[in-house]
Amino acid sequence: MHILIIGAAGMVGRKLAERLAKDGHLGGREITKATLHDVVEPSAPAGAKFTSTTLASDFSLPGEVEKLVAGKPDVIFHLAAIVSGEAEQDFDKGYRINLDGTMLLFAAIRAIGNGYKPRVVFTSSIAVFGAPFPEAIGDEFFTTPLTSYGTQKAIGELLLSDYSRKGFFDGVGIRLPTICVRPGKPNKAASGFFSNIIREPLAGHEAVLPVAETVRHWHASPRSAVGFLLHAATMDTALLGWRRNLSMPGLSVTVGEQIAALRNVAGEKVVARIKHVPDPTIIKIVEGWPMNFDTKRARSLGFTSESSFEEIIRVHIEDELGGKIA
Amino acid sequence: MHILIIGAAGMVGRKLAERLAKDGHLGGREITKATLHDVVEPSAPAGAKFTSTTLASDFSLPGEVEKLVAGKPDVIFHLAAIVSGEAEQDFDKGYRINLDGTMLLFAAIRAIGNGYKPRVVFTSSIAVFGAPFPEAIGDEFFTTPLTSYGTQKAIGELLLSDYSRKGFFDGVGIRLPTICVRPGKPNKAASGFFSNIIREPLAGHEAVLPVAETVRHWHASPRSAVGFLLHAATMDTALLGWRRNLSMPGLSVTVGEQIAALRNVAGEKVVARIKHVPDPTIIKIVEGWPMNFDTKRARSLGFTSESSFEEIIRVHIEDELGGKIA
Repeated sequence: MHILIIGAAGMVGRKLAERLAKDGHLGGREITKATLHDVVEPSAPAGAKFTSTTLASDFSLPGEVEKLVAGKPDVIFHLAAIVSGEAEQDFDKGYRINLDGTMLLFAAIRAIGNGYKPRVVFTSSIAVFGAPFPEAIGDEFFTTPLTSYGTQKAIGELLLSDYSRKGFFDGVGIRLPTICVRPGKPNKAASGFFSNIIREPLAGHEAVLPVAETVRHWHASPRSAVGFLLHAATMDTALLGWRRNLSMPGLSVTVGEQIAALRNVAGEKVVARIKHVPDPTIIKIVEGWPMNFDTKRARSLGFTSESSFEEIIRVHIEDELGGKIA
Repeated sequence: MHILIIGAAGMVGRKLAERLAKDGHLGGREITKATLHDVVEPSAPAGAKFTSTTLASDFSLPGEVEKLVAGKPDVIFHLAAIVSGEAEQDFDKGYRINLDGTMLLFAAIRAIGNGYKPRVVFTSSIAVFGAPFPEAIGDEFFTTPLTSYGTQKAIGELLLSDYSRKGFFDGVGIRLPTICVRPGKPNKAASGFFSNIIREPLAGHEAVLPVAETVRHWHASPRSAVGFLLHAATMDTALLGWRRNLSMPGLSVTVGEQIAALRNVAGEKVVARIKHVPDPTIIKIVEGWPMNFDTKRARSLGFTSESSFEEIIRVHIEDELGGKIA
């Protein structure tokens, strides 16, 4: 089978490709070919038995998505997006990549016709929801995004459902929790601190906590994110009906609970590397974010994630630190 | 003030223009100019003190919406749409008019800039909701449309909110109930019978009822629809926050209750003109439609509609039949 990943140079895309290389199969079928695309050229996963083709282009430009789907991939993972902050700052670019790009991709799949009906897995986001929230956001809560990014994702979800209903492809949209612990360097994303305060201390570095320990948020590990994608690619979509978009399971914890888990796993010496430096801008942004979900539907459909923050930390230590703490 | 109506040749658009002509003002400001647009040339309302310009074009073609907004109307009513059945049958045409047309209009308003920030009233639809439903659809129920028309309207709502949040215009989206009693000839819309069984008997003609009397649906009169539009055009939008789309109030009644109301208002002789001829296709379509809403939010914001089906029938007799029953 042939797999296409759009957005393959991002953290989740890269981990997905590595996992596919390791598994060699998807849903019981051998993977023979992977096409990996992003705006910068993605790297091919090491040790894959299948052929990887890596491509770089702006997929919102005329003719680009047509090239990507011309080889009729069996499964298409659409992970490509301009992130929230940039989409908010550059309205036109956000709409061009996150909305026009998605519309062009869906139209290009439909245009092939002749019975071509790939599985399309679309990564949406909890940013489709906007405050005020109920205590836990349920499966039937409405989408009233407070960012252009969230708007673009919510529109992608609607299009995914309609194209699936019309039989143009077989789509599943998954709303990812905040991914924690995010590997790599600290970045300037407003949500960065949720990972920074775990990753940096574990690596022997100081980390800044800009909000109060009472702040609650919704997390899943990168390993869970890849698990969601694989399950979305292989599940029986007849069980979804025409409600093709799902909030993924996660863990609702406060920053204080994150720190307590870090203490349990790695000790006080590591926790002492977290410095409290309140940042009013970040405090304000985070107030509007979802804190908790009730993801009954996704869980009943077989999606799973971590059940404690200790587990999230241990996944990070295993997958990123080779089991070692600094 | 200058008012633009896009979709002015439709039933609701025409009644809106007539009401504006009769009132002569909107929200306490004198109307000096109306631009009336549709794909076929709308008629100018009789007796208006303001100047009416009537225009016909396909507003999804390049350059057309720019012409419509170039005069910087203070209020824009966007009622234009390909109806549900046609949008379902012709996927490309539905997306071109209902989605691309709306996107082009919003972009053209934004492109004017220089502080131009009109009130934009967008008519959405209860078709943004898809079965299965709760007993009454509340203000926070999710939008999972089961038609391309409903999808296009739900996307329009999201764009309206985002453009409003970004300050490009001041938008209000209103989800109209099924309009009953719809004047004119019986049409082939699946929902036509809800009006046919009232309008035709009152005019001395037979009407066909294709579903069981237990079928429940959500109604408001054409007069209420115009009232919703006027209130949306003049209300204080600060009260909406960024949740700019509202299900409009209506009346949830069964077909049996509609017929009982007709009997109360017009007598058994008129009711006897309704013929029961079950139509399996229509029975199936109607099963997926919303039956009841809880529109707390819209009511608290001052939107009002009829409180009995007798009242809906009397509005029809007053507004369309000059008070007379055949």
